[in-house]
Amino acid sequence: MSTGLSAGTPAVEPVPRVMVIGVGLIGASIGSALTQRGWPVHLRDTRSSHARVAETLGAGTAAPPLPEAVDMVVVAVPPVALAGVVRQALDTYPRATVTDVGSVKAGVLAEVWGHREVHRYVGSHPMAGTQHSGPTAARPDLFADRTWVITPHRRSDPASTEAVTRLALACDARTLTMDVDDHDAAVARVSHLPHLMSVLTAGHLTTVGERDLALAGPGLRDVTRIAGSDPGLWVQILSANSTAVLAELRQVRDELSGLIGAIEDSGPELVGDDRDTLALRETLARGQAGTRRIPGKHGAPAITYEQVVIEIPDAPGALAGLFADVGQAGVNVEDVAIEHDQNRQVGYLALSVEPEAAAGLAEVMTAKGWNVQP
Amino acid sequence: MSTGLSAGTPAVEPVPRVMVIGVGLIGASIGSALTQRGWPVHLRDTRSSHARVAETLGAGTAAPPLPEAVDMVVVAVPPVALAGVVRQALDTYPRATVTDVGSVKAGVLAEVWGHREVHRYVGSHPMAGTQHSGPTAARPDLFADRTWVITPHRRSDPASTEAVTRLALACDARTLTMDVDDHDAAVARVSHLPHLMSVLTAGHLTTVGERDLALAGPGLRDVTRIAGSDPGLWVQILSANSTAVLAELRQVRDELSGLIGAIEDSGPELVGDDRDTLALRETLARGQAGTRRIPGKHGAPAITYEQVVIEIPDAPGALAGLFADVGQAGVNVEDVAIEHDQNRQVGYLALSVEPEAAAGLAEVMTAKGWNVQP
Repeated sequence: MSTGLSAGTPAVEPVPRVMVIGVGLIGASIGSALTQRGWPVHLRDTRSSHARVAETLGAGTAAPPLPEAVDMVVVAVPPVALAGVVRQALDTYPRATVTDVGSVKAGVLAEVWGHREVHRYVGSHPMAGTQHSGPTAARPDLFADRTWVITPHRRSDPASTEAVTRLALACDARTLTMDVDDHDAAVARVSHLPHLMSVLTAGHLTTVGERDLALAGPGLRDVTRIAGSDPGLWVQILSANSTAVLAELRQVRDELSGLIGAIEDSGPELVGDDRDTLALRETLARGQAGTRRIPGKHGAPAITYEQVVIEIPDAPGALAGLFADVGQAGVNVEDVAIEHDQNRQVGYLALSVEPEAAAGLAEVMTAKGWNVQP
Repeated sequence: MSTGLSAGTPAVEPVPRVMVIGVGLIGASIGSALTQRGWPVHLRDTRSSHARVAETLGAGTAAPPLPEAVDMVVVAVPPVALAGVVRQALDTYPRATVTDVGSVKAGVLAEVWGHREVHRYVGSHPMAGTQHSGPTAARPDLFADRTWVITPHRRSDPASTEAVTRLALACDARTLTMDVDDHDAAVARVSHLPHLMSVLTAGHLTTVGERDLALAGPGLRDVTRIAGSDPGLWVQILSANSTAVLAELRQVRDELSGLIGAIEDSGPELVGDDRDTLALRETLARGQAGTRRIPGKHGAPAITYEQVVIEIPDAPGALAGLFADVGQAGVNVEDVAIEHDQNRQVGYLALSVEPEAAAGLAEVMTAKGWNVQP
């Protein structure tokens, strides 16, 4: 039954009191984000100095709460300790929804499954982190615009799922609901496998001489950055998800063997019909296609830009004018490339723009007298 | 014989007239860098629109020079065309030093070797580029603080080597002299292999469903960035350096097999003595060690920081004071970590600073009353 009183002034839900257990990078960042939102946050860590440092950095208070007053527990301890701490939290905090932020979800659920209060447990996984660790690396905006996966299960209370969703949203993340097994297979593919490829690439550098390393460019740094992460943490993540990770690794081993064959076929010592670069070209093109499948910034779907193609006039001054007119069109140009007519001695400027801007740009440029390709 | 006239006013060497053949990303960037330095630059490309676009962007003039007036030719065409264009340039420009900027050096030298003017050819390789291509992606600062390898040979004229060195320095690069075979082996290790690892990782994403890709974090983007490069260019680079690249790839295949074995041994389904995470931990630690071998920004050697370790006081207010005092010490802190005493309930803040700053920071903090570990 609705009353006139609530119209225009929706009831403000009281903010939950949160207990963060494990105050490393992730725990302290969650504490900081929630504290900024005005949520009361308590911090606990077996290493009391972590909790005190996090408190100093504004992630919450190291003072313990009344167990009955806690609405939500976030378990952010190392992977091997997750299930045990979740079970303890269900025992200690009688009203609280309990979530964990571990990178692998099936094992924890299996271990918590037998607990009589399992309906108050809903696992989750914020897809954020850095190669640094510890509370001093924490940032309140660590989860902003990142995906935060929530993994409800057959026995979980819908109110608990809702509470975890609210927590993730308060950290400015975007939530995504998945089954635990689907989640674990997905992170094997988009996180654990790429991590191991970075580790292999970086590890291989230990066999390379110092003078050769002087030739390293920024690409090498990009490929190997995440291999700088804490090995102790990753041993736990990878062994907890070993089945899914092994499936991906074995596939990549086959792909690597295929690549080796393709390069063997492409060598310059082979001539004529024996030399074949087709397979190598296909492998490289497949890699390029893969990069285009990664969602854009802020989790937006990968944008397929549309091209507006304009003939490059044969007079030098005119080309400068073309660039100036493109600039004045007020359209955000994402990429510029030059294309050629195979038959005529003429070039084209291909401007990549967001699909909804393409027609407008073509119209403006045509109106200014440029030869826009249909 | 010296004369008084030159004292205090050293003779200014006239700037060389440069012909850039092939006006893609690298050629146009070289033209832009040299034009900014006041060097006269001529641009030539079989696709005349490339030269005209590069001219518009300030990389030089598309007008042809008198062949006898050219001091230096930079050949920046696709890899398969390099040797032929270098030979032509030696024929066309009778006084010029000719260099190429290809990523693989031995094959080009072998093809140019028989030319009677081979003494005027000295290959080189600027270690710079982006995943973009074409003159519109060109930047005059593309080579700033990058390594530019110069590969003289038995028959090259020392004056030609000097001219190429001057060219690289005018682009703000740092030069490194290497033998062609040593160069090709080095780039196989620090550039071509990492490129292929990025390609494999990105290519594997073509097998991954769209929903799984929503879980991608910034690490995946880093690892796969360079795989977005032009496949056509990389087919040429890799097949030109196939022998050296295959040696690295086969080694990595063995390392991958070792990693698969290590993860098989670490699985949670194994218990007790059968479960062994040691090999996995070693692989991950090796990767972390590899990242530390990559030279620092601007080609500086990888810095090993020194740690100043300060006991974290047991009073919350005191810790805030500690951070404030560290901030006031005026020392650039590169990393902060928390360490623990295994036996006592006490924590330490480990501040990583440049070696020469460590003693000063320790002194300041001690003077302010903090307990600095020896």
